[in-house]
Amino acid sequence: MKFTNKLYSVFLLLTIFLFSLCGISCAGDSIYQYSTIDSLLIGNYDGELTIGGLKKYGDTGLGTFNQLDGEMVFLDGEVYKINARGKAIRMDDNERTPFAAAAFFKTGKIIKLDSVKSLEDLNDKISQSLDSENLFYVIRIDGKFRKIRTRSVPAQQKPYPPLKEVVKDQSIFGFKDVSGTLIGIKSPSYVKGIGVPGFHWHFITKERSSGGHVLNCVFKNLAAKVGTYNEFQLQLPETKSFLDAKFGQDRQKELKEVEKDSEKK
Amino acid sequence: MKFTNKLYSVFLLLTIFLFSLCGISCAGDSIYQYSTIDSLLIGNYDGELTIGGLKKYGDTGLGTFNQLDGEMVFLDGEVYKINARGKAIRMDDNERTPFAAAAFFKTGKIIKLDSVKSLEDLNDKISQSLDSENLFYVIRIDGKFRKIRTRSVPAQQKPYPPLKEVVKDQSIFGFKDVSGTLIGIKSPSYVKGIGVPGFHWHFITKERSSGGHVLNCVFKNLAAKVGTYNEFQLQLPETKSFLDAKFGQDRQKELKEVEKDSEKK
Repeated sequence: MKFTNKLYSVFLLLTIFLFSLCGISCAGDSIYQYSTIDSLLIGNYDGELTIGGLKKYGDTGLGTFNQLDGEMVFLDGEVYKINARGKAIRMDDNERTPFAAAAFFKTGKIIKLDSVKSLEDLNDKISQSLDSENLFYVIRIDGKFRKIRTRSVPAQQKPYPPLKEVVKDQSIFGFKDVSGTLIGIKSPSYVKGIGVPGFHWHFITKERSSGGHVLNCVFKNLAAKVGTYNEFQLQLPETKSFLDAKFGQDRQKELKEVEKDSEKK
Repeated sequence: MKFTNKLYSVFLLLTIFLFSLCGISCAGDSIYQYSTIDSLLIGNYDGELTIGGLKKYGDTGLGTFNQLDGEMVFLDGEVYKINARGKAIRMDDNERTPFAAAAFFKTGKIIKLDSVKSLEDLNDKISQSLDSENLFYVIRIDGKFRKIRTRSVPAQQKPYPPLKEVVKDQSIFGFKDVSGTLIGIKSPSYVKGIGVPGFHWHFITKERSSGGHVLNCVFKNLAAKVGTYNEFQLQLPETKSFLDAKFGQDRQKELKEVEKDSEKK
């Protein structure tokens, strides 16, 4: 009996130790990304990663779905698709994604934003409050927004066109005095070709009924919660289209084209 | 007693389950890298990662040591420094590195190499046998080599000069009919700025007495053991010099300059 108790204690301690090990090296300060942005840009719209699989690496994030079917908002552990009609749909764990980024959200810093006049203004104000350009950040802003403009994209049929062609048919949605959440990821310049350098924002309404990839926003008196991440975990697809892709070319111009607000000015 | 036995079984199973979880998500197919190659190129030669810390992420790898003191060869779980006199020294777990890559070595594929005339020839022959240009590979070649040329670099004093200046004073070592091991890492083109695109080789003799960063090699009838890795785990330093660094510039030309064999033609 005494020996069994000792064994029990040893295994209990071992379990706690292993739990903490897993916590340190798999989650904690790590931002996880499935596939590369250049792979998405050239039209690799089918991935192997399930939404259930993505949830192992975080509770917050951004991305899209297989066939490039809409914009992904990953918030409070739930994954939503904003489809091409602007409608938010809660997604099952067995759905798949060709590109997504996720992290366990933590608030390391709160940045007060008195008045934000545009997306560029938002990005500038947050940048000025960050300690380094060389780390990863996940940002969350909850509240009522004066204006938000978003876009989403329709599911594609094979042969898939490159993303720059798809966004020519994107749907654009305008919100006024809308309550909801902006989820942003800021990545360092050196992830060029792999991730999206700079800021990347998606939006979902408070009722989780609508949203999209953010093109512009205007608001007053909100706070950005910011988590800093010093580990980047890149998972590569093993699909034939990824393995055979040619990634030599610099696609920064193409990425800017795809991200920008075509209705501005 | 019966209840304690049950508890014991539950914890045993939980322990095994957690071990396998850790194996899947933290080790397995992951190649780990501490800091970025551009950070090393601009002269950030002091890192926080200990050799003991590096060993959590692999048993095989490449890198350097704080103050840029020599070339690192990580082999069979042991870390060696090849110093500026070409001597290999086994390093303690409390030493530190500003840049290193590691993985748990696995042999997924064996490539027979009948005749290798140069480093470029070796790289070409291995490339031709790989399934994709878009994954990471760790390569190990054990045996007797006809010729190997290596280099190492001396420890630097602050203010640290950029790597392209340091290599002007590199020491070059020639080996003939030498037994030992080549350790190589092949990275995809898209890691530009973060890692070393293409091949990167270090060498250590069979007696673990000498070696260095490989500039050239000639050999016959050896086999390359190749492991494929589809996950890349990047750990960022939190040193002031890393956090404050400016990484906008493309340093591919500088990297090629630093890697090349200056004695060749």
